[in-house]
Amino acid sequence: MADTLTLDGLIAALPADTVVTDPDIIASYRQDRALDPEAGLPMAVVRARSTADVVAAVRWCADNRVPIIPRGAGSGLSGGSGGVVGAITISTERMREISIDPVMRVAVVQPGLLNAEVKSAVKQHGLWYPPDPSSFEICSIGGNAATNAGGLCCVKYGVTTDYVLGMQVVLADGRAIRLGGPRLKDSAGLSLTKLFVGSEGTLGIITELTLRLLPPQPPASTVVASFASVHHATEAVLAITDQIRPAMLEFMDAVAINAVEDHLKMGLDRTAGAMLVAQSDAPGAAAADEIAIITAAFEANGASEVFSTDDVAEGEAFTVARRMAIPAVEKLGSLLLEDVGVPLPSLPALVDGIAAIAERRDVMISVIAHAGDGNTHPLIVFDPTDTEQAARADLAFGEVMDLAIGLGGTITGEHGVGRLKKAWLPDQVGADVMDVSRRIKDALDPDHLLNPGTMF
Amino acid sequence: MADTLTLDGLIAALPADTVVTDPDIIASYRQDRALDPEAGLPMAVVRARSTADVVAAVRWCADNRVPIIPRGAGSGLSGGSGGVVGAITISTERMREISIDPVMRVAVVQPGLLNAEVKSAVKQHGLWYPPDPSSFEICSIGGNAATNAGGLCCVKYGVTTDYVLGMQVVLADGRAIRLGGPRLKDSAGLSLTKLFVGSEGTLGIITELTLRLLPPQPPASTVVASFASVHHATEAVLAITDQIRPAMLEFMDAVAINAVEDHLKMGLDRTAGAMLVAQSDAPGAAAADEIAIITAAFEANGASEVFSTDDVAEGEAFTVARRMAIPAVEKLGSLLLEDVGVPLPSLPALVDGIAAIAERRDVMISVIAHAGDGNTHPLIVFDPTDTEQAARADLAFGEVMDLAIGLGGTITGEHGVGRLKKAWLPDQVGADVMDVSRRIKDALDPDHLLNPGTMF
Repeated sequence: MADTLTLDGLIAALPADTVVTDPDIIASYRQDRALDPEAGLPMAVVRARSTADVVAAVRWCADNRVPIIPRGAGSGLSGGSGGVVGAITISTERMREISIDPVMRVAVVQPGLLNAEVKSAVKQHGLWYPPDPSSFEICSIGGNAATNAGGLCCVKYGVTTDYVLGMQVVLADGRAIRLGGPRLKDSAGLSLTKLFVGSEGTLGIITELTLRLLPPQPPASTVVASFASVHHATEAVLAITDQIRPAMLEFMDAVAINAVEDHLKMGLDRTAGAMLVAQSDAPGAAAADEIAIITAAFEANGASEVFSTDDVAEGEAFTVARRMAIPAVEKLGSLLLEDVGVPLPSLPALVDGIAAIAERRDVMISVIAHAGDGNTHPLIVFDPTDTEQAARADLAFGEVMDLAIGLGGTITGEHGVGRLKKAWLPDQVGADVMDVSRRIKDALDPDHLLNPGTMF
Repeated sequence: MADTLTLDGLIAALPADTVVTDPDIIASYRQDRALDPEAGLPMAVVRARSTADVVAAVRWCADNRVPIIPRGAGSGLSGGSGGVVGAITISTERMREISIDPVMRVAVVQPGLLNAEVKSAVKQHGLWYPPDPSSFEICSIGGNAATNAGGLCCVKYGVTTDYVLGMQVVLADGRAIRLGGPRLKDSAGLSLTKLFVGSEGTLGIITELTLRLLPPQPPASTVVASFASVHHATEAVLAITDQIRPAMLEFMDAVAINAVEDHLKMGLDRTAGAMLVAQSDAPGAAAADEIAIITAAFEANGASEVFSTDDVAEGEAFTVARRMAIPAVEKLGSLLLEDVGVPLPSLPALVDGIAAIAERRDVMISVIAHAGDGNTHPLIVFDPTDTEQAARADLAFGEVMDLAIGLGGTITGEHGVGRLKKAWLPDQVGADVMDVSRRIKDALDPDHLLNPGTMF
C-alpha cells in the first residue's frame, strides 16, 4: 500500500453512502464482541448492499494491496472481525434479503440477516432453521457460516455446516463464485462449500447462502435439575448421552446460576453446585420416554430438585435463563470467554481442570456448557483495573486451551479461532495441518489480504 | 518416470507380499464396478496393510513421479479407481481394523472394512452407523468417504460427510496427517476433514476414519404402493416431503419392478408404472402418524395398491427388492449407470426428460431413485455387441447429465465424478469453480500424481 493511497477510487467504485470515512463511525467497527483491546482502527468501512458492492470493494483492495476485514453483525467472540490499521472493513450488515422456497425446503439468504430473523422468516412458511447460537438475536447468518456456529440444539441437530447447501462467495481477487446449490445430495467435485464454511473470512466473503430447512420442530418437553456438584452434573450428562440424543442438554455452574437468578429472579436454586437443562422433542408419546430416561439419569446422579414440564413456554424460560448466563456473568467483571470442547467422556476432567486453573491463578472462572456435545464456555471474570489480575486471567485463558488440547479436545467448538486463539491453533492441529491450511490459503489468497492476523 | 524404472525400490520399501507384480492379479485391479473399457493396466498393485505401507508406497511414487490410483473395494460406479497405464494402484482392502468407543460414541476404522462390516461391528455395541449405500455389502468405508457416498436413509440421516469426524490421510508427498478427531463440535482452523471427504483420492489417501455413531435406529414401519405412471409417483414424493422427513423414500419404474420380480418372485405388481417404498422410524406411536401421512399422499396421487407393515423383516424385504434393482436390470444388458440429482420439485421434469431421451436415442432407460432427496439412478441398458446401440447409449448418458444440469441439478448425487463423468463437471460447476478446485489440487499435489484423469 502506497503512502499516498487515498480512498477516492474506492468511493467512486461504490454507490453513495457505502464507504464510511467518518472516524467516529469507523470507531464503532474497531472491535467485535470479543472487545479485543489490541484491535486497530480500519482505514474505512464499506457497508455493502449487494454482492456487486463487495466485488467492487474487494477489487479495489486487491488492486491496492489493502487488507480486508470481513464483518457480519460484529457479535463474534474470538476477535475474528476486529479491525486492523490500514485495512478496509467490509460489513455485510445491510445485505438483508431472503427468499424461501417451501416446496424445495430451502432459504436463499443474504449474510446480513440475523439468525433470529432467518428463523422467524422460515417459520412463517411452517419450516425450521435449526442452528441456534445463544446469541441468535444479535448474530448474523453470514457470521454463523463464517465461523460454523453451533448452539443449543446442535447436540441433536448439528451445526451450521450441516445446513449450508450452497453459497455465493467473493474471492480475494474479486471474483464472485457460486458453490453448491439447492440439492440435498451432490458429490460433484471438491466439497468447496464445506471448506468455506468455518473459514472465518480468510478465503472469501460470503454474500449469499442457500440453507437447508427442516419441518417444524415438535414441541419440546423440558427437565431441569440441580446438583450438589459440577461433577454430579457431568456424570449425569454421560449417563444421558449414553442412551439417547436429547434435543438440548445445557449446563450451568453455581456462579452462572446465581448471576442469572440475580437478573431473572425465577427461583433457581442458589445453593446448587450445578444445574442441567435438558429437552426432548421426540414426537408424541416418545418424548415422555426420553424425559423418563433423562429424569432417571438425573436422579441416579444425586439431583436434588428435578422439575419437568411439557409446557413449551415454561421450558423456554429455562432456555432463556441459560442464554442469559453470559450477559449475566458479564456484570461481575470483564470476561475472557472460552469455547473449548472435549470428547464427551473427558467432560468431568475438563471441568475439574478448569477449577484447578481458577484456583492456581486466583481468578473466577464460571463454566457454562453445551454439555451434550462436550462444548464448554468457561467465562474468566476479572477486574480490568487490576493489572495483575488481568494478567493472571490472560494466563488462565491460555491454560484452559492447553488443558483442552491435552484432553484431546479443541480450542474452539463454535466461536472460531479469530485473533484471540490464533496462537494456540498450531498446538491443537500440528505443523503439518497448518502447512496444508497455509497452502490452501496461499492458493486462494496469495497476498493474504483476507482477514490477516487471524487463523494464518 | 524414467524408461528404466524398476519396481525394486518399491518392493524393498514394503513388507513381503505387499507389492503385486503378477500380471493376472494386476488385471483384476484394472477396472472397478464401472467396467470402464478404457481403464488401463497399472504397473503394480500395492496391497497396503497399514498407514506406514501407504506412506512408503506414496513416497516411492513421489520420488519417481509415478501416478497413484487409490482404491478401496473396487465397487465404484464412476470409474474413480480404474487403472492407468504406468501407475501404481494402492489398495486399502487389507486395512481392516476397527475400534469402537461406546461412551464417546465413535468408531475408529481402517478404510478396507466394508460398510456392512462397520454397521455390524457397531451394532454389537448397541450403536448405529447410518449411511447405507445400496452396495453396502460390497463397498468399503474408505471408498464411501472418498466419494461422500449416500444411500437410502440419507433422506433423513444425511450422507457420509455428516458422520466423518476425523481422519488420517496420506498426502501426495507421503506425509500422513491427522484431521479432526472424536469431537462433536470443532471450529478450529479450516474444515479440512470436510474437504477431503468426497475428494475421490485426488488430494490424499484416507488410511483411517473417525466416525460418529448414533443410538440404534428405532424399528421402521414400511409402506409400499404401486402407481399407474411414474408421474403419479413423483407427485406423491413431493406431497410427502412437503410434510415430513421419511426415513426412506425409494422409487422404481416398471422396468426395474419387473426385473426385480423376475428374481425375487415376491408378488410385485408387474402392471404398475412405478412403485414407491417409504419408511418411518419415528419413535413409538409417532410412526403411525407418519405412515398415515405417507399413505394419504399415496392415495391422493392415485396409488392402486397400498400395503403397510410394522413388521421390520417384512419391510426389509421391500428394501432388499429396491437394492436388487441394479443387479436385476443388469441382467437385461450392459449398463451405463447414472447418478443425477435435481432439486426435489424438478424430479417429475427429470423423469419425463429421461423418458424423452430414451425414446429419441432408442435405448432402454430404467429409472430407480432415492426419490426423497431428488437423487436418481437412470440405468441405460444396451447390448454391447450392437455398436450402434452402444454409441446411442453413450449419447444418452451425456444427455441425461445435460438435462440434470439444465434443471439446476448435479451430475452425481453420491457416486462421484470419477473418470466417466469428468467431462461434464465444468458444465455443472463452471470455470471459476474449476479454477478454485485446481488451485487447491495444485497446492496439495503439485505434480498431479494422485488419481490422474479423474476430477481435474
